[in-house]
Amino acid sequence: MTAEITNPYDGAFRGKAHYFALRVYAEDTDFGGVVYHANYLHFLERARSDMLRSLGINQRAALETGKGVYAVAEMTIKYCQPARLEDELVVVSQLLEVCGASCIIHQKIMRGQDTLTAATVKAAFLNPAGRPARQPVEWVDKFASIKAKPG
Amino acid sequence: MTAEITNPYDGAFRGKAHYFALRVYAEDTDFGGVVYHANYLHFLERARSDMLRSLGINQRAALETGKGVYAVAEMTIKYCQPARLEDELVVVSQLLEVCGASCIIHQKIMRGQDTLTAATVKAAFLNPAGRPARQPVEWVDKFASIKAKPG
Amino acid sequence: MTAEITNPYDGAFRGKAHYFALRVYAEDTDFGGVVYHANYLHFLERARSDMLRSLGINQRAALETGKGVYAVAEMTIKYCQPARLEDELVVVSQLLEVCGASCIIHQKIMRGQDTLTAATVKAAFLNPAGRPARQPVEWVDKFASIKAKPG
Amino acid sequence: MTAEITNPYDGAFRGKAHYFALRVYAEDTDFGGVVYHANYLHFLERARSDMLRSLGINQRAALETGKGVYAVAEMTIKYCQPARLEDELVVVSQLLEVCGASCIIHQKIMRGQDTLTAATVKAAFLNPAGRPARQPVEWVDKFASIKAKPG
Repeated sequence: MTAEITNPYDGAFRGKAHYFALRVYAEDTDFGGVVYHANYLHFLERARSDMLRSLGINQRAALETGKGVYAVAEMTIKYCQPARLEDELVVVSQLLEVCGASCIIHQKIMRGQDTLTAATVKAAFLNPAGRPARQPVEWVDKFASIKAKPG
Repeated sequence: MTAEITNPYDGAFRGKAHYFALRVYAEDTDFGGVVYHANYLHFLERARSDMLRSLGINQRAALETGKGVYAVAEMTIKYCQPARLEDELVVVSQLLEVCGASCIIHQKIMRGQDTLTAATVKAAFLNPAGRPARQPVEWVDKFASIKAKPG
Repeated sequence: MTAEITNPYDGAFRGKAHYFALRVYAEDTDFGGVVYHANYLHFLERARSDMLRSLGINQRAALETGKGVYAVAEMTIKYCQPARLEDELVVVSQLLEVCGASCIIHQKIMRGQDTLTAATVKAAFLNPAGRPARQPVEWVDKFASIKAKPG
Repeated sequence: MTAEITNPYDGAFRGKAHYFALRVYAEDTDFGGVVYHANYLHFLERARSDMLRSLGINQRAALETGKGVYAVAEMTIKYCQPARLEDELVVVSQLLEVCGASCIIHQKIMRGQDTLTAATVKAAFLNPAGRPARQPVEWVDKFASIKAKPG
């Protein structure tokens, strides 16, 4: 146990879906006693970043070597039930579509069996000048290997 | 001028549309040098709160007297161009629909003539227990008066 | 492994010090490419909340049963080196002093052997009316047991 | 009035002190119904940025031309009373000291005559490599002109 305490949490794939757990802290809440609506987007983004890391994709290296970076181009989000302080949540993410310059990901924020929030996100790959660009081929291959999995 | 410095900014309606100006600060940006995608939702929420205030609707009083509060139930958002540090932006909001227990609002974040972000937001009115409830009649009347305006 | 993925990360005590690991996400950064200075306070607060949880103190229950809640009363913080996207950090927290109505905690945010940020935080216990109040005796006992540990 | 609605708020100096007004929005609050402690740092930073702008200092240009940027090096902050949703606040900032590579600024967040929060901030000037650097001479001259004012 001792070693693990100083390692941050990592999510992982199970079949086609990526799982990412988190706890709700004070920073996430608002005066209503529930998670502030914009902060669920933080949870979704952490899960997408972790999904890339799970696939061996290093976003920071891609940024620093001038390859490019993902940016959210479109999002549809539905808030069904609120999350509260200290809730333990799991973000379940699934790649719906991989296009040349973008991915479409479906994400759910769950508390136990309940879906609190559901979102569909289009992430576009941008070159360092901020223009849409083709995703690196080796990344697309990794995405394809996930989509080919059972489950 | 002296008095005004200590008054926070207020937006206002012009015809059917509500205008709310703001400046981008460091807190709003991310490592990409642009506004972090979740933070545009802050701008949209400030504008919606200001729209209510412009109509004489006091959200804090409604909360404190146990009437209820608006919560975002659904949102579709499209990110077209990024905003950057110190940009001066204007959020233009328009009521599309007023239902019994919710409103649908269209919002654009503009920099000059350019639309950076466009969103459609469904705001549901919730009672103190967090359940959907009818919006106060006097508020619906105020919304109707706006929708009846020319322009 | 399968079970753990859906459990959020928990920090823990080792001797007198509490350790809490985290990773830097896009939400934490600003246009300078580093963590925005106010967001280190999120990391510190997550670690303090986790420290209470490690001691079996349930903040949410204390809030819901009308006991009270901790609030930051004073903080001194020194920013030595910046943290960057995807950095793996550890927050090391130590109770310096337990008074009747407040605690003083020293916290460091580390990346490997480097201290990036160091803070001393006075957390005051507030009753539901927001006034300073005595900390629950059983909590003070838990704090004392930590301070009595070797190391 | 029509023109002003689409201009964001600007603070200003009165004598030696800079005034910056703002309103508390949902994004600023936490489950306690008050402003989350880290978010007061946003208010302070907005005021400091506005102070520079009031002096004709363009931070974004300084960044883009490779001059450098200010970063918070140290801060001491005292939370006296909480701010709440829709509160109208004024941040009063005063330059205490201008050194070669840093400034020390005292800031208060006021609601009417009450000081809610008081902070002393050391802002260090960093070159694009992130190392401490001399502040541009013309900026230091502007700071000196403020410190020489009566009041």
